[in-house]
Amino acid sequence: MHGPDLTLLTDFYQLTMMQGYYDLNSEDQIVVFDLFYRINPHGSSFAIAAGLEQAIQYIDNIKFTKEDITYLRKQNIFKDDFLEYLKTFKFTGDIYSVPEGTVIFPGEPILKVVAPLCEAQLIETALLNIINHQSLIATKAARVKWAAEDDIVLEFGLRRAQGPDAGNLGARAAVIGGCGATSNVLAAKMFDIPAKGTHAHSWVMSFPDELTSFRKYAELYPMNCLLLVDTYDTLKSGVPNAIKVFNELKEKGIKPDFYGVRLDSGDLSYLSKKARIMLDEAGFEDAVISASSDLDEYLIRDLKLQGAKITLWGVGTNLITSKGNPSFGGVYKLSAKYNGEKFIPKMKISENPEKITNPGNKKIIRIYNKRSNKIKADLITLNHEQVDETKPLVLFDPKDTWKHSTLQPGTYYTRELLVPIFINGKCVYDIPTTFKVKEYCDKELSTLWPESRRLINPQNVFVDLSQELYDLKQSMIKQYKIKQPI
Amino acid sequence: MHGPDLTLLTDFYQLTMMQGYYDLNSEDQIVVFDLFYRINPHGSSFAIAAGLEQAIQYIDNIKFTKEDITYLRKQNIFKDDFLEYLKTFKFTGDIYSVPEGTVIFPGEPILKVVAPLCEAQLIETALLNIINHQSLIATKAARVKWAAEDDIVLEFGLRRAQGPDAGNLGARAAVIGGCGATSNVLAAKMFDIPAKGTHAHSWVMSFPDELTSFRKYAELYPMNCLLLVDTYDTLKSGVPNAIKVFNELKEKGIKPDFYGVRLDSGDLSYLSKKARIMLDEAGFEDAVISASSDLDEYLIRDLKLQGAKITLWGVGTNLITSKGNPSFGGVYKLSAKYNGEKFIPKMKISENPEKITNPGNKKIIRIYNKRSNKIKADLITLNHEQVDETKPLVLFDPKDTWKHSTLQPGTYYTRELLVPIFINGKCVYDIPTTFKVKEYCDKELSTLWPESRRLINPQNVFVDLSQELYDLKQSMIKQYKIKQPI
Repeated sequence: MHGPDLTLLTDFYQLTMMQGYYDLNSEDQIVVFDLFYRINPHGSSFAIAAGLEQAIQYIDNIKFTKEDITYLRKQNIFKDDFLEYLKTFKFTGDIYSVPEGTVIFPGEPILKVVAPLCEAQLIETALLNIINHQSLIATKAARVKWAAEDDIVLEFGLRRAQGPDAGNLGARAAVIGGCGATSNVLAAKMFDIPAKGTHAHSWVMSFPDELTSFRKYAELYPMNCLLLVDTYDTLKSGVPNAIKVFNELKEKGIKPDFYGVRLDSGDLSYLSKKARIMLDEAGFEDAVISASSDLDEYLIRDLKLQGAKITLWGVGTNLITSKGNPSFGGVYKLSAKYNGEKFIPKMKISENPEKITNPGNKKIIRIYNKRSNKIKADLITLNHEQVDETKPLVLFDPKDTWKHSTLQPGTYYTRELLVPIFINGKCVYDIPTTFKVKEYCDKELSTLWPESRRLINPQNVFVDLSQELYDLKQSMIKQYKIKQPI
Repeated sequence: MHGPDLTLLTDFYQLTMMQGYYDLNSEDQIVVFDLFYRINPHGSSFAIAAGLEQAIQYIDNIKFTKEDITYLRKQNIFKDDFLEYLKTFKFTGDIYSVPEGTVIFPGEPILKVVAPLCEAQLIETALLNIINHQSLIATKAARVKWAAEDDIVLEFGLRRAQGPDAGNLGARAAVIGGCGATSNVLAAKMFDIPAKGTHAHSWVMSFPDELTSFRKYAELYPMNCLLLVDTYDTLKSGVPNAIKVFNELKEKGIKPDFYGVRLDSGDLSYLSKKARIMLDEAGFEDAVISASSDLDEYLIRDLKLQGAKITLWGVGTNLITSKGNPSFGGVYKLSAKYNGEKFIPKMKISENPEKITNPGNKKIIRIYNKRSNKIKADLITLNHEQVDETKPLVLFDPKDTWKHSTLQPGTYYTRELLVPIFINGKCVYDIPTTFKVKEYCDKELSTLWPESRRLINPQNVFVDLSQELYDLKQSMIKQYKIKQPI
């Protein structure tokens, strides 16, 4: 990331509004903004939160440079006193967030900013940009990995990513969500994740014939020898030539750590089954068959249903762009204002009930089934509320309130999801490595029932409101309707 | 852009192959690679080439740092002599490209690299990443602008872009393709393009009532006063309050340069027609009605068909992610090898006829109708070929060769599309400003018949091969079939 340069990575209207608040002397009014999303991508029942590390770097590096101020002055819309204020501007507030790699659900405040109004406003756009992007790709990767079951999935999408950051940060998010490695060397270096790759068709074509190209490759990389077999004809030329080369390695007494073939075109199910037979008959039962070629979670699942003998999947374009759903709809809404003594809840009323926000300074309590360790439900509560695990816990659906269930003490346990990231502008969070985030995400995914991981029409996980939050929301809607009858 | 850091923005296999070529002493073998694409995004008949400026910066900044070498050494796969070679590695070859903003068609070499093998190989991934991304967004923007006709389109997508670069470079490409401005302040500063934006719902909600919020906004920005009118109720509250404020400005004798309302929800056609009547009846015929809310080219076209009174369109998510088609399928294929005397054509044969490449060191000749200045066809020829405009020109379809037409001298003129960008590793191209590229793109788009700009099922523009290139390709296919009968 290039933190120092991202201060102006914001919408122009944030700056015009900031000047307005500054002019009204309300720039230091403490407010609460919630970052949440409304709809899971790809018809999933969940999403994976990602991007926190880059969000932290961004916040830590906010600083309007002289050049930035000069640029803004030239817009002929910002006054001197406001520009003067920007010169020493930095983030001084608090941020709470779910850890990266957490399984999240619609409507939950996955990140919460408690900060002076102008600060909370400036950071909206970049926070959304960073977290929307990485959460999107991590979620897609979790779906692809689910389809691939115990197989390894590699991220191969750099050349089709939406710019360099999308390639690098997308590779990071893909690894968090489930990929074992990336083809992207820069991402691998930046985030200390494995880089993988062997050779392209152009390698094979640069030799007079395929066998010579395979021989040379095996000579160079005898211990890690995955040969791309579809340049001419997969079954008549590619696989037989690969087998020749594997035999030659064997004759030389070389036992590769990792070897096999890669299919990149044709019917991957048919070809992999035939290639498996050919490799097995030649005594190479441990040779890997890998595949790439317009893969996504649906095609991988289908290929596995047809008995494809592929155990290593290179997924490119469809993962790195989250094809079919290339944006994550995270939004950032005001939920409270601090009046010097307490947080006064705020909410956005909309004719569209899905767009009505949850008011107040809130937190998320995740409720687990004690026996299975699976998620039972999430409960959004006001910040001061506590769940007493020694008492029965009543959960009810905030839309159909007659739907409710009571959890008996001893059958459940709870966990608060939001953890402090910034306090008074200082980062108090120990940023884990990308690999640690990946491990955590893997554990998180294991807390979902398989029914909720189904690729199509999965079982949704309940996100409920506490009685107190529900009552607050209803009373605010009622008051609003009296004040502004529409 | 952050050029110096992008050297490792490549696929791992490029490095393993480079080491192979180095080992074979063929790292300096001069080769020709063509960058082209096969299918237009969104069912369009054309695409817009974009990203060249960033590609140039990338090439100019290629340098393996000490840190990069240390990182590669740790992979335990690269030998000392190869790493030593990388230490002084730089791009020394030639690059030819169509100028940014050029209308392009499938199959054409829109960028051509003539360089030592290892150099041509390293840069493949980053070139594709940069050019695929920006061409994708520029093409989408050209479609959106076409739907909006003479109206202005603003790029509003930063918060949903796939990472910071996608926001910045996407805004740049959107402006090239047709947007008048962006909401993204950093992109505006980086590329000297206009930044636009007024206020969000949160501005309105931070005041006790809507009217007060509008008054304050008009007080701050009297000359540029676009008010967001849908926070509570567009027609009962928003527009009447906006009219009150416009009247107050009038009473003070203030004549804004630009003023009006923005709609961000509800039925934009219905609301804009009602708002137009209300504004006109109040004497504000010149007040602008702008709209945003999940817009794309199809919705804009449809809203205009219903008589929507909107003349300024803010397009976010669907443009910045190119929703519906979030990747541009540019590829990079070997087309020739230099043997010290001449270029020996190379081609990839595939069972899939669409994937057979065009061999040889080539160029693109664009043929225009002299009377209309519209594109008649593009002709891909070998580099040494010339079109003599004083003679009849025979064009034929490379698939259905019986389809041909003869252009008489005086009815057509030609232009070569590829221009030198790098010669012997030195940039020889005078990079135009983004605004100049936009102006050029606008002219380029005017060379397409309206039939080819249709959003759905447009008329395709012919891309033909010269007789010499066609014959070469056929003879190479024949030779190959004799050598490797499949």
